[in-house]
Amino acid sequence: MSTVSGTDISALTSGQFATVYNLFSLVIASMLFTALYLLLSRSRVAPRYRNALVVSATVCGIAAYHYFRIFENFKESYPPGATVAADHLLSNIEFNEAYRYVDWLLTVPLLLVETIAVMALGRAASKTLLWKLVPASALMILLGYPGEIAQGMGARALWGGLSTIPFLYLLYVLFVELSKSLDRQPVQVQTSIKRLRISLLALWGVYPIAYLFPIIGGDFFGGASGFVLRQTGYSLADIFAKAAYGLVIYKIARVKSGLEDPEYDDDHASPTVASNTGDRNVPSPV
Amino acid sequence: MSTVSGTDISALTSGQFATVYNLFSLVIASMLFTALYLLLSRSRVAPRYRNALVVSATVCGIAAYHYFRIFENFKESYPPGATVAADHLLSNIEFNEAYRYVDWLLTVPLLLVETIAVMALGRAASKTLLWKLVPASALMILLGYPGEIAQGMGARALWGGLSTIPFLYLLYVLFVELSKSLDRQPVQVQTSIKRLRISLLALWGVYPIAYLFPIIGGDFFGGASGFVLRQTGYSLADIFAKAAYGLVIYKIARVKSGLEDPEYDDDHASPTVASNTGDRNVPSPV
Repeated sequence: MSTVSGTDISALTSGQFATVYNLFSLVIASMLFTALYLLLSRSRVAPRYRNALVVSATVCGIAAYHYFRIFENFKESYPPGATVAADHLLSNIEFNEAYRYVDWLLTVPLLLVETIAVMALGRAASKTLLWKLVPASALMILLGYPGEIAQGMGARALWGGLSTIPFLYLLYVLFVELSKSLDRQPVQVQTSIKRLRISLLALWGVYPIAYLFPIIGGDFFGGASGFVLRQTGYSLADIFAKAAYGLVIYKIARVKSGLEDPEYDDDHASPTVASNTGDRNVPSPV
Repeated sequence: MSTVSGTDISALTSGQFATVYNLFSLVIASMLFTALYLLLSRSRVAPRYRNALVVSATVCGIAAYHYFRIFENFKESYPPGATVAADHLLSNIEFNEAYRYVDWLLTVPLLLVETIAVMALGRAASKTLLWKLVPASALMILLGYPGEIAQGMGARALWGGLSTIPFLYLLYVLFVELSKSLDRQPVQVQTSIKRLRISLLALWGVYPIAYLFPIIGGDFFGGASGFVLRQTGYSLADIFAKAAYGLVIYKIARVKSGLEDPEYDDDHASPTVASNTGDRNVPSPV
């Protein structure tokens, strides 16, 4: 009984350890500074879109917190060997995959909240959509977790299957019900919003694939290489699904703000400079 | 004499340890980021409601601090065994339930303060209510604590009983005296405020039930399973009673702000877009 969750790997080569370690640090930096950037950019969108930015920043902040924990936990679980080139053997401290589930339980519903927030639908339409999306997404995560910590592959498959039910419902709401509201978005952002939706589908697809690795099993998927690949998949999917996703939310908010209020359409036009051919004679505000 | 407080458990399985550990981390993330979110959302409510948000954020911040302490303390009290699958045996460091009482002593009165603040009653009415609610809630916590650390079950029951007296008085003030002020709240938030009150009652009910576990005793409630269930109950009740509660306070403040000043009713109207599609023709407030 050397494994707690069926996913603990007894040894990583120094190269495998370094790969995962550096990836985790990349995720921390991406999440933390995307969160700060989004917060610092709030005043560049109209007030009605600021909540979408704050929620996006919160998602990245929560992910940064969890990756910081995962990073520290990983160092403790696979301490260095006798030399820099030696294998990192699993210590008596479990590598805790549950941090990811805790993270997703909080961030996946919030990603749906930020998506609805940036669309700025009517109050009733927003409420109806959120009452479907948020509970279904939380249920999807909660049902996946027992499978992740289960000893047997049968239980892993069963809970994974159950978790797919709310996932399919989410797809229905996003791709059927949400489409009605999409037509009312400005044409300039319709493509971006459709891409958001597609990227949710594509990125969320990474998680169940990584989840299946131990079931696929074999020397590769069931061993250290599978572990490294799974951590790589989770980490990159998290960067795209949270940090990059938040930046697209910001871009949509910025375009919509500019369309609705010229005050926010100030990115590229620089009237003073343009009309004066490079010479400025506008007094600086003191 | 292996127990200090009658609630210390000599060993946890690795699964029990992981469950409690992950729950504590969930509470830290929930409290910390709810506090930040509430602080960042201040400008979205009218000035008169901002104190309710700051107090709600303070409650979540205080809870995040205490759960950080509890989390570190828990790791020290139940260190890992020889392998990741081994039991976690109680070390020479007590698992300190008193952190919770210190937390509640500060946060429970503040939860009542934020509730009264969001109602924006007259100065005299607020003052009268707070002079009843705050001392009674502090007394409720203070009287519970000697029972928590008592060796005997008799003392636990006695102090628990004494603590119930201010609790019943609180219920009287919230459900009888507060009802007069409730009628003067806008109809749009009356239901939310009534739900707040009900959730206070329901969630505060979790604490005395968890408190009774060692008295109920037996293999389950008196042992490691009861410990895990009690920590789960406390943790989830804290998330709902503080973080979720704070978000409902924010929602009430936001609705009331929008009713009192159109500047704050800006979430969903998207004037430019709306006039293009013809379904709304409200001019944008400039």
